[in-house]
Amino acid sequence: MEINDQDNPKWRLRATQQTPTKSIREVLTLLVNSRDAADQRPFIQLGHGDPSAFPSFRTARINEDAIVDAVKSGSFNSYAPALGLLPTRRAIAEYLSADLPYRLSSDDILVTTGGRQAIRVVLSALAGFSTANVLFPKPGYPFYEVTAKYVNLEFRHFNLLPERGWEVDIDSLESLADENTVAMVIINPGNPCGNVYSYQHLNQIAETAKKLGIFVISDEAYGHLAFGSKPFVPMGVFGAIVPVFTLGTLSKRWTVPGWRLGWVATSDPSGALKETKVVDCLIDRLDFFSNPTTFVQGAVPKILENAKGEFFNNYVNLLSQCADTCCNKVQEIECINCPSKPEGSMFVMVKLDVWDLDDIRDDMEFCMKLAKEEAVIVLPGTALGLKGWLRITFAIEPSLLEEGLAKLKAFCKRHTKQK
Amino acid sequence: MEINDQDNPKWRLRATQQTPTKSIREVLTLLVNSRDAADQRPFIQLGHGDPSAFPSFRTARINEDAIVDAVKSGSFNSYAPALGLLPTRRAIAEYLSADLPYRLSSDDILVTTGGRQAIRVVLSALAGFSTANVLFPKPGYPFYEVTAKYVNLEFRHFNLLPERGWEVDIDSLESLADENTVAMVIINPGNPCGNVYSYQHLNQIAETAKKLGIFVISDEAYGHLAFGSKPFVPMGVFGAIVPVFTLGTLSKRWTVPGWRLGWVATSDPSGALKETKVVDCLIDRLDFFSNPTTFVQGAVPKILENAKGEFFNNYVNLLSQCADTCCNKVQEIECINCPSKPEGSMFVMVKLDVWDLDDIRDDMEFCMKLAKEEAVIVLPGTALGLKGWLRITFAIEPSLLEEGLAKLKAFCKRHTKQK
Repeated sequence: MEINDQDNPKWRLRATQQTPTKSIREVLTLLVNSRDAADQRPFIQLGHGDPSAFPSFRTARINEDAIVDAVKSGSFNSYAPALGLLPTRRAIAEYLSADLPYRLSSDDILVTTGGRQAIRVVLSALAGFSTANVLFPKPGYPFYEVTAKYVNLEFRHFNLLPERGWEVDIDSLESLADENTVAMVIINPGNPCGNVYSYQHLNQIAETAKKLGIFVISDEAYGHLAFGSKPFVPMGVFGAIVPVFTLGTLSKRWTVPGWRLGWVATSDPSGALKETKVVDCLIDRLDFFSNPTTFVQGAVPKILENAKGEFFNNYVNLLSQCADTCCNKVQEIECINCPSKPEGSMFVMVKLDVWDLDDIRDDMEFCMKLAKEEAVIVLPGTALGLKGWLRITFAIEPSLLEEGLAKLKAFCKRHTKQK
Repeated sequence: MEINDQDNPKWRLRATQQTPTKSIREVLTLLVNSRDAADQRPFIQLGHGDPSAFPSFRTARINEDAIVDAVKSGSFNSYAPALGLLPTRRAIAEYLSADLPYRLSSDDILVTTGGRQAIRVVLSALAGFSTANVLFPKPGYPFYEVTAKYVNLEFRHFNLLPERGWEVDIDSLESLADENTVAMVIINPGNPCGNVYSYQHLNQIAETAKKLGIFVISDEAYGHLAFGSKPFVPMGVFGAIVPVFTLGTLSKRWTVPGWRLGWVATSDPSGALKETKVVDCLIDRLDFFSNPTTFVQGAVPKILENAKGEFFNNYVNLLSQCADTCCNKVQEIECINCPSKPEGSMFVMVKLDVWDLDDIRDDMEFCMKLAKEEAVIVLPGTALGLKGWLRITFAIEPSLLEEGLAKLKAFCKRHTKQK
């Protein structure tokens, strides 16, 4: 073999590849970096779904105490089994079963490091089936697309309908599926749309999926964060019609995304999924991924019990008030239109009318200039597959929310064409 | 498109693929499951490198307190940046710099969920370079092979030489590399071999790698766990000769693998790696992986300081005593030969002479029967790429180690051919 000159070795490695799709984190970083370095104003973050650092949204002390007890016991310093600790899996099964017409067992639960790893594990398992494709919602959560590209899994997009409270466009779903389609994803309560699906609509999704011979991946990261007219209904309720993988996490309901704990639950009372061996494939993949911190797993049984407490009611009320504030303020802005009031999660999708604006061509430019001029971060719809829209997070400290929305209003007014 | 019968939907998904290489965890599970279900004796685990659950190996209370303080502060409930918290990266840089002839900065550090994720991140980045291949040691840590297969990265094996204290066979290394080889892996202190490489040998590896134009991935998961004649020397010491990715973790030195915190450090004082853009590629990949729990990151500065304390000296002394016990007992067993006394890590590799045994054909059968008959778990060399050998963990509670080795001896005696 050829040997390099010893004093000037040529390192053989040269960069050739970059990941093409941008995650939300990357887009937000782009916005933050778009302004002058000299500008030191703190940003008002209406761009991401993590209110945990704000005093009003801090998790309950009893949740922190549950972690402290687990650490101090010294019983959770070791590696955990790949699927998670048994008492943890049992506790998650019980927690989810409370809202289902049948009981899940610990065998139906895999513990993951947060909701994003739950997505990785499921999509990685599907990528093992060579010709498979999956259907994602548009707009959606771009980590699905980033992950599918990473694991070489083909995907297609069905539409959500803003004029119908972001319900799934069933016609577009049916026309999209072919003989290689194996699954569809729904996100309920909705990210980025703030929708909560009715029992009837979920039933319709289940029947359609059954007809198409595909199963449902139900992303319930924002599960139970519902404050509108419709209660949160887990997709697993329809498990007897269609097998469901439910993705969940402590991150949002307990406002502790930094604790890195989530799960994949298999709702398959008819045993249809077991037959396909896809669960074996999932378990097979889990060995490749990181386990969540063992003592966080050890604290899960106590933490899940705490979901019933006062903290949670206060928290959902606070979200509801923030959503109201957000909608009321946005209604005062001419170039922004909110077709559907949020009823859950932490977000609202609003339509941007750039024709009214002087020097802004699209949602990306809008968000870049907003970051630069007002130090306010809002996520451009382009990052979510829906150009011409914006995703606004209302889950931040109420005083900051008011301030951020006032700045948004001033920004829009300043850029509105003179008539 | 074809529509299935609604009452008997045919789920489109069918299993076609399984991961081919077995991880250590899978092999250990196989051994544990090999015995009769009725047998309820507790296993003596001489098979894995996690002594954290044994009283003598429990981590220092000050480490647990550092976590407790971080949790109670409420300052670490949020998502962390993809590369890790800045104070965490800075603390790791300082910790590593203490043993280097130059200083690392926080920019040289990526925080990962343990050592295994450090491996994943680095190999995933290399897999982005389409024709690249990497060189792994044999025997080694099979997670490298499992990961490389998973990310479609070609690998080849160079030999470690038992008769030379498991040093790298430099000739086999040179003959193996070709124009597409980009990196080699060393594990020091050694897993599975318990070796500690001398300064001179590491220097020789560095010069060879430079000649070949490849960089070094130095797995120092067992860093500082050295108790023989040679001190532990980090590969980064030779960073000016050859760029080094150093993989590290809290798991082994602090006996807290369940805390899930590790790192990738780039030792590249000449800036050669930066030119290749491989670090950008690594960072790019990180966004796909899970972050470690934020409050564990928050506790890292305090925990790294604790490495200087009494706990660590006692711990290394204990490992040294356990290694002595192990070697002395193994010498009494006729069919097992230890070519090289361990000087670091938690393991020793011993050669099995099956010709002396009655009804045992190889290391796998030996370990299966040992598990079944004596409830003692030892790892077959086959799982590590070295058939005919065994990996014995000596890092367990001393009384259990004695008991396990006595059972191993009795087992061997019982199966020895009558002469």
